Amino acid sequence: MSKAIPEPVTKLIEAFSRLPGVGPKTASRLTYFLLRAPDELALSLSEALRELKEKTRFCSVCGNITVDDPCAVCSDPRRDRSMVAVVEEPLDLLAIERTASFTGLYHVLNGAISPINGIGPDDLRIGELVRRIDAGGIVEVIIATNPGQEGDATAMYIRRELQHKGVKITRLARGLPVGGDLEYVDSVTLLRALQGRSEL
Amino acid sequence: MSKAIPEPVTKLIEAFSRLPGVGPKTASRLTYFLLRAPDELALSLSEALRELKEKTRFCSVCGNITVDDPCAVCSDPRRDRSMVAVVEEPLDLLAIERTASFTGLYHVLNGAISPINGIGPDDLRIGELVRRIDAGGIVEVIIATNPGQEGDATAMYIRRELQHKGVKITRLARGLPVGGDLEYVDSVTLLRALQGRSEL
Repeated sequence: MSKAIPEPVTKLIEAFSRLPGVGPKTASRLTYFLLRAPDELALSLSEALRELKEKTRFCSVCGNITVDDPCAVCSDPRRDRSMVAVVEEPLDLLAIERTASFTGLYHVLNGAISPINGIGPDDLRIGELVRRIDAGGIVEVIIATNPGQEGDATAMYIRRELQHKGVKITRLARGLPVGGDLEYVDSVTLLRALQGRSEL
Repeated sequence: MSKAIPEPVTKLIEAFSRLPGVGPKTASRLTYFLLRAPDELALSLSEALRELKEKTRFCSVCGNITVDDPCAVCSDPRRDRSMVAVVEEPLDLLAIERTASFTGLYHVLNGAISPINGIGPDDLRIGELVRRIDAGGIVEVIIATNPGQEGDATAMYIRRELQHKGVKITRLARGLPVGGDLEYVDSVTLLRALQGRSEL
């Protein structure tokens, strides 16, 4: 039976299946789509994958993905070098960049403390953050980890590590998401919104 | 702002976005996953994509995906050459092979008649099917197009094309799916099951 499927096809189905959120059905659907699509589609994806690994690296300063080291943010003379936003992932950095309102630098941790997944503080780029602060010039560290258990634990750990370094440590505000509906907001978020209420 | 994303990253996000069912969010999630994952993951996917296009082709007899021409099914001496199952896609062929009960040959149409998508009979491998039948040896043609409007239209068209060829033309049975629940079966399927009822 399986000999009806040529090896290059099964190999690609297997390779797709290893991506997160891609099951065997999606993997074979994508593979058969590419078989019928113009060659250029599969070949440009192939090339982009190879280039991703060959041309990018992590910024030695902030840990962001970059072609040149240090990265475009770290080497931009217009950025405010006294503020550092600490994020879990490069995608979080991009989310903050999209607000077009943060002019400081970043520090990418490469994850969050997660005992369940066996990720401890030593697996994150916390030592590098401490060294950046020790090197001087940083006035405020904005902890922008995700608003959840793992992000909270990571924030608490970093606060403890930095508390005697003489830097201001802040965290992103919790509260109601803009455009959200009170009726549908979960009670933890609503509790945080109450606790963090501000005068009008 | 966008300069915070290196070009190889945006290129891969774009390449992923061109796959069916992959939106920009999924594309960037996959890209950033691959950035952090071992190099082998992205590189083996890159290689598999290249090999898919370099090593596979369509069987000149049945139109299935294959490395060698004719394909493994067409060149298997144990297959019954008097029966041909007509399917829309190679994946449909695999579905029938999985039943391990069909011993005939196949004919892959490469789609179904779909005026909305601008696909007419001439875009399908119907001429090739007629020529296979004219060449002799085929006794029964089992039309195994999908049970929907486009598959039905395609089946009707093929039946008309083949009606004076002296071959038996059959179609897959319609009815209740095994394991299904009568309560949840759509009424068209239930109607077909009633019409096709058999004596116990």
